[in-house]
Amino acid sequence: MSVKAFTFQRGDEVTGIGVLWHGQAYDFSLAWEAFKNLEAQGRGPSLQFLQVMIELGFFELATFTEVMQALERRRLLEEFRLQDGYGIGLPVARPQKILCLGRNYQEHAEEWGAEVPEEPIVFAKLPSALLPPGGTILLPSGIGSVEHEVELAVIVGKQGRNIAPEDAWDYVAGYTIVNDITARDLQLKDFERRWPWLRSKSFDTFCPMGPYVVPRDVFSRAVDLRLELRVNGEVRQRARTSQMVYDIPTVLAFISRWATLYPGDILCMGTPAGTGPLRPGDLVEAEIEGIGVLTNRVALRRE
Amino acid sequence: MSVKAFTFQRGDEVTGIGVLWHGQAYDFSLAWEAFKNLEAQGRGPSLQFLQVMIELGFFELATFTEVMQALERRRLLEEFRLQDGYGIGLPVARPQKILCLGRNYQEHAEEWGAEVPEEPIVFAKLPSALLPPGGTILLPSGIGSVEHEVELAVIVGKQGRNIAPEDAWDYVAGYTIVNDITARDLQLKDFERRWPWLRSKSFDTFCPMGPYVVPRDVFSRAVDLRLELRVNGEVRQRARTSQMVYDIPTVLAFISRWATLYPGDILCMGTPAGTGPLRPGDLVEAEIEGIGVLTNRVALRRE
Repeated sequence: MSVKAFTFQRGDEVTGIGVLWHGQAYDFSLAWEAFKNLEAQGRGPSLQFLQVMIELGFFELATFTEVMQALERRRLLEEFRLQDGYGIGLPVARPQKILCLGRNYQEHAEEWGAEVPEEPIVFAKLPSALLPPGGTILLPSGIGSVEHEVELAVIVGKQGRNIAPEDAWDYVAGYTIVNDITARDLQLKDFERRWPWLRSKSFDTFCPMGPYVVPRDVFSRAVDLRLELRVNGEVRQRARTSQMVYDIPTVLAFISRWATLYPGDILCMGTPAGTGPLRPGDLVEAEIEGIGVLTNRVALRRE
Repeated sequence: MSVKAFTFQRGDEVTGIGVLWHGQAYDFSLAWEAFKNLEAQGRGPSLQFLQVMIELGFFELATFTEVMQALERRRLLEEFRLQDGYGIGLPVARPQKILCLGRNYQEHAEEWGAEVPEEPIVFAKLPSALLPPGGTILLPSGIGSVEHEVELAVIVGKQGRNIAPEDAWDYVAGYTIVNDITARDLQLKDFERRWPWLRSKSFDTFCPMGPYVVPRDVFSRAVDLRLELRVNGEVRQRARTSQMVYDIPTVLAFISRWATLYPGDILCMGTPAGTGPLRPGDLVEAEIEGIGVLTNRVALRRE
């Protein structure tokens, strides 16, 4: 069952939760209200924000299918079709944390002249770096090469610590796409002097994310998806998520041994080989099979 | 004028904003409501959360003095005295980011056998590591030495990027205390292999913060305060914030060149020499002159 959720907006304001259902876009926030009135005497929270839906534990494939099928049966679905003219916003606007894996694909580790790490390498991107789909990646001047890194991102659905790998799926709300933009020359400089990786990963606009969130149960637990990154139509990165060194349950378990995970937290699962520089004017498309295409333009940062 | 703000709670819930005024504790949230009714026809937001007061731009010395003096003049202040039995919570429960400076005191850099850095070293602590005053610092097993680091923390009061050093004070809401708990052996191991510093800084409970927030204008802009850290009453760290290598305006300007700062963001200004290991049962007191004492117990983490 294909379900893709998103936040839609008109102007700058997030207006509601949208859902792609059989390839058509619907206003799920309104559909949910109708469903509550028809089947639950109006009871239940209102669901205007995807992040809140995740935090409340309502972000499940079953929620979407139940609502959409109930309205379909009553031939009411057409009322909730999204009219053109909306934009797609960040799936989660204010995660408590964004954690990323370094060298989680063997060939990318080799690009670094490095071994596959003996345990997951985890670093943070600052939430202030988030950029919605369609937003412009801004290249600061004077910092050298800035590169693309397409990554599968897991959105955490439930608070947890010391999660056992066999229970890890219970803590996954769904999947989206992150382009882990990296100031590579600065990262290498900091790497050489043994400094933190934070800055090179966290310039404003360096964390494009979206457009869609696919609920966990849409995919099998093996999550073997094709990733691809294109710059101006030319393929730069191509791999499958099954090539990840550390899989999702291992990473959730590893991180939750030291940091409690919260609903809305973002875990970026690392990038495959083929990362390369971005230039002003580039059109960058980060695509993951079954999720969608995250498209951003590149421009010089002016201030 | 001495004003110290805090969040108070009864049970586990944050109940309101408290203020120490002439050494007495008052319920500022209620005092504010009375003030609005007396002087502003009830207009204005409600101020229940310190973080929201900061985000709304109301966290200023002048706000506190105006409210408290107006109630004093009318001899109403006694009605707002806080009764015993409250606890003090985190000043900011959900900052967008917590950034810290490495080696920002020369003698601490020398403990590392390192030079004073040629530019500020900035790393992140995860907000999931926050621990309220009085909370217990938990030592995970099997990770070696865990150390204390007393630090002056700046709470950002206004959104900003590319802040000029001469404008930096406009972006400071106030000051509090952070104990930047660090898994030192793990940090050194990650340092050796050029890995990120994130994990050793971000175990749950590794970011005690509070108890008080002092509004910016209480201190002169030089912010020359004595810091001291005691373990079981024994002084381990003692310095003055005037010994910092990079001062607050320099650091705000530096960070805001790459990451937009938001109200509620926490900037920890680095620790002086004398950091050392914590053991189960220790009582740790991180004190900064004019702000207060942040007290935490230490215990083994079980599970």
